[in-house]
Amino acid sequence: MANFVKIFDTTLRDGTQGEGISLSVEDKMKIARKLDSLGVHYIEGGWPGSNNKDIEFFTRVKELGLKHAKVTAFGSTRRKDTLPENDINLNRILEVGVPVATIFGKSWDFHVHQAIQTTLEENLSMIYDSVHYLKSKGLEIIYDAEHFFDGYKNNADYALQTIKKAEEAGADWIVLCDTNGGSLPHEISEIVTIVKRFVSIPVGIHAHNDCELGVANSLAAVMAGATQVQGTINGFGERCGNANLCSIIPNLQLKLNYSCISEEQLQGLSNVARYVSEIANMHLPVNQAFVGAAAFAHKGGIHVSAILRNASTYEHIKPELVGNKQRVLVSELAGQSNLVFKAQELGLNFDNNNEQSRKLIEQIKEMEHQGYQFEGADASLELLIRDAYGKQEELFTLESFKIIVAKNDDQPVVTEAIVKLSINGESVYNAAEGNGPVNALDNALRKCLLQYYPVLQDMHLSDYKVRVLDEKDKTAAKVRVLIESTDFHNTWSTVGVSADIIVASADALIDSLRYALIGKTRSTVQIEEQKERIGLVNH
Amino acid sequence: MANFVKIFDTTLRDGTQGEGISLSVEDKMKIARKLDSLGVHYIEGGWPGSNNKDIEFFTRVKELGLKHAKVTAFGSTRRKDTLPENDINLNRILEVGVPVATIFGKSWDFHVHQAIQTTLEENLSMIYDSVHYLKSKGLEIIYDAEHFFDGYKNNADYALQTIKKAEEAGADWIVLCDTNGGSLPHEISEIVTIVKRFVSIPVGIHAHNDCELGVANSLAAVMAGATQVQGTINGFGERCGNANLCSIIPNLQLKLNYSCISEEQLQGLSNVARYVSEIANMHLPVNQAFVGAAAFAHKGGIHVSAILRNASTYEHIKPELVGNKQRVLVSELAGQSNLVFKAQELGLNFDNNNEQSRKLIEQIKEMEHQGYQFEGADASLELLIRDAYGKQEELFTLESFKIIVAKNDDQPVVTEAIVKLSINGESVYNAAEGNGPVNALDNALRKCLLQYYPVLQDMHLSDYKVRVLDEKDKTAAKVRVLIESTDFHNTWSTVGVSADIIVASADALIDSLRYALIGKTRSTVQIEEQKERIGLVNH
Repeated sequence: MANFVKIFDTTLRDGTQGEGISLSVEDKMKIARKLDSLGVHYIEGGWPGSNNKDIEFFTRVKELGLKHAKVTAFGSTRRKDTLPENDINLNRILEVGVPVATIFGKSWDFHVHQAIQTTLEENLSMIYDSVHYLKSKGLEIIYDAEHFFDGYKNNADYALQTIKKAEEAGADWIVLCDTNGGSLPHEISEIVTIVKRFVSIPVGIHAHNDCELGVANSLAAVMAGATQVQGTINGFGERCGNANLCSIIPNLQLKLNYSCISEEQLQGLSNVARYVSEIANMHLPVNQAFVGAAAFAHKGGIHVSAILRNASTYEHIKPELVGNKQRVLVSELAGQSNLVFKAQELGLNFDNNNEQSRKLIEQIKEMEHQGYQFEGADASLELLIRDAYGKQEELFTLESFKIIVAKNDDQPVVTEAIVKLSINGESVYNAAEGNGPVNALDNALRKCLLQYYPVLQDMHLSDYKVRVLDEKDKTAAKVRVLIESTDFHNTWSTVGVSADIIVASADALIDSLRYALIGKTRSTVQIEEQKERIGLVNH
Repeated sequence: MANFVKIFDTTLRDGTQGEGISLSVEDKMKIARKLDSLGVHYIEGGWPGSNNKDIEFFTRVKELGLKHAKVTAFGSTRRKDTLPENDINLNRILEVGVPVATIFGKSWDFHVHQAIQTTLEENLSMIYDSVHYLKSKGLEIIYDAEHFFDGYKNNADYALQTIKKAEEAGADWIVLCDTNGGSLPHEISEIVTIVKRFVSIPVGIHAHNDCELGVANSLAAVMAGATQVQGTINGFGERCGNANLCSIIPNLQLKLNYSCISEEQLQGLSNVARYVSEIANMHLPVNQAFVGAAAFAHKGGIHVSAILRNASTYEHIKPELVGNKQRVLVSELAGQSNLVFKAQELGLNFDNNNEQSRKLIEQIKEMEHQGYQFEGADASLELLIRDAYGKQEELFTLESFKIIVAKNDDQPVVTEAIVKLSINGESVYNAAEGNGPVNALDNALRKCLLQYYPVLQDMHLSDYKVRVLDEKDKTAAKVRVLIESTDFHNTWSTVGVSADIIVASADALIDSLRYALIGKTRSTVQIEEQKERIGLVNH
């Protein structure tokens, strides 16, 4: 029991303060459900005293019937010189009907003077009254001591008085916040140790990442005796973000032998990270620790030859423990062992010394030189390998296309695509409108292809990314388009490069459609099963 | 002197192992020059025994006449069962004529058996011979003990023997590498302390970020006595990246009072981070510690009202110390104080209670609801504020446009734009070709506008980004286009949102051109000076 640490997730509250993050109530519901499946102990849903969207969330979250997590509402201590009974902010917490209130108050004398502009005594009363009032209504109270570490460093005695007040008023937890993210692990360790001796209720940590130490600070606090960690999925949050739960949980559990969530729940971690990032419409960095697509990706040639012998030579944990996967990247640095690895995944006997293989390597190098990147486009790479080995028949070719985008005065824009395909030797000509040029092109291509390959009905595009490649003269620069597609069973990515965004998109679209037809038109190579087994396309 | 730490940058070697990173020789030259200006002590330029591009770099870097940094070449210990004199890899280091060699060898018995497949004794000889050979040729030798921490944890005695061998052979430095990034700060601290007692030459640290602890591990090593830190700009590197020098340097210098580079050089840190990221064509995360665009950006309404009173309430250091800037973001969460702040920056007297202001707030909320984001598009926001206050005359309007993209067989694609503008009441009609639809549109708009506003000659687009906004049906989803423009003095960003990428691009282009004309056609508001002062657009 001494080794148990509770996870407090504030993605839905502090996380939404991050630049570029905005969540609808529906988004918040989806994320809450996902957090519950991960096994976090507290979900901080918002600040009901601050906006109506958060109130709606607290009403609707009850429908979800969460199995594991307690939902908590955030709020400040009462306003100065008022009674807690008359404080709208505190009463809103009661009105939304949560079992747990998270109340933050000032620990730093400087903030009492500068930010809320009252006396040190009144601030102590604000803390006591607010905690006492909500506790008297039967709620579990988590007291967030804002700026505790900065406060302690400036006036230790006063900082300690503030948390003592919260304890006396009946708080269940004291959570020490490094609100500005400026503290270092040895400071956190020292101060948490002191606080643990000073109060008799459990202590938690709330760290930020302004020194790129949010994870280290959280671990230091736990090692000094904290038993609750507050943070967010992917470290979302204001400025440099909150402490990242996606790194804290595996570190606590796999490295330090603390217990937070179950092994099965931990195996869902990468999925949770990607899901939340998708809902929040934030890019998940490929190099994010534990859960990023590159966290267990190997590029250096010597690394690749070593992991072919034994994966633990260059992997600090088994990726499966956090639901991630090993990948091998193809690039100019990698030597040939990476390509060998890919070909083996496809069940092809790749021989370094034969002419076909050498030509393929040259072709890939040349394409990379032009701006292609196959690291994020496994399906396009597979098509190249198949083409080189004659394992892919030409099911269709795009002979010509024309796209017209016309906008007149205040009329809506009209976008049309006209395409000519050659399918099984026949010429097929068709046109379609679309919501934007790439959509029009996609629609026109499908109109032609569906008559021949009805299986394409199941497939749709799930992501579309554009990357500008050069520096100068940006609207004329080369662009790389990455398209992700899914048919509900599998997900695959393709790439196109051109100075023209439409041409690059068309190339990636064509690859995507060709790839969709692989498993469907040939049964000799059991490619679907292979992909399942090796996780080639599901990253 | 005891508090001096040497910075060893390996962006050009280990950094290039990161997913998506590929640097030409020209790129490497630019980055080397920049690293030298930052004041790093060692620049590891590549592995001459591994590829010819790196050899070319070592030849050409001599032309740069670097003032501060020593250039070093990387290589492995000699191959098993050969003489160092006959080892191509070691001789390449001599041939490229660097003053410092960085030689890595195995510390982990498991790797000796698994990866290089030799005996423990032969590995010790490989280390001794390689260091001794290069040292005898007059080079400074940095010995990188690969997998030292994993090796120590598995077989401490053998790991210590390997570094002792390097010391006996004349190495100038022993650098302990956490190659797989799996170690924790308390382990690093303990093991570095032991090594410091065991060897008498200086010790360094080389950490990776697989546990999101690369920075913490580097700091822990320095606090335990390491006096060299190896890392990369922005933490580029394989898997989750190397330890991030952009966080390590300010932490060492501003928080722990170690001395690495000068105060002036530290003020160039944000610029170096952005420059390297631009050259490497990697996205610099806005939330990156110290140097990210959001590192000192404030979104929460209460934070903003507090920093309006005193910036240190929510900032752990002065952003100027690392060459960064405070920013205030406008968003639905922020309340009105953020918008007040923006308007004040523009010298406008924004009154919360007047009708104009309330309408503007509603308009911004509605646009954000549609997918606009002004956090990264200050110029579009400024235009909205100016329009609301009648501070902006309508210099031109886009009446209609048509874009045609046609591709036939193997012919190159042809893209044309036809536009009709109303400028000062006159109708102007023109057409242009372009390299892609946005470029064609840009060309056609300029053809019309330049006759009236020749000052636009100086302005060009410097970045173009596309973000897909919804999840379903991606090619028909709404897209947000961000355009960054520059006229050599200033840089500004504008935004457009539409289901049609062409329409979104056109909207952002128009805003960009309108903004370019503000300072040029009005002199009443000295907007250029203001922007300079407050750094509104230079982020």
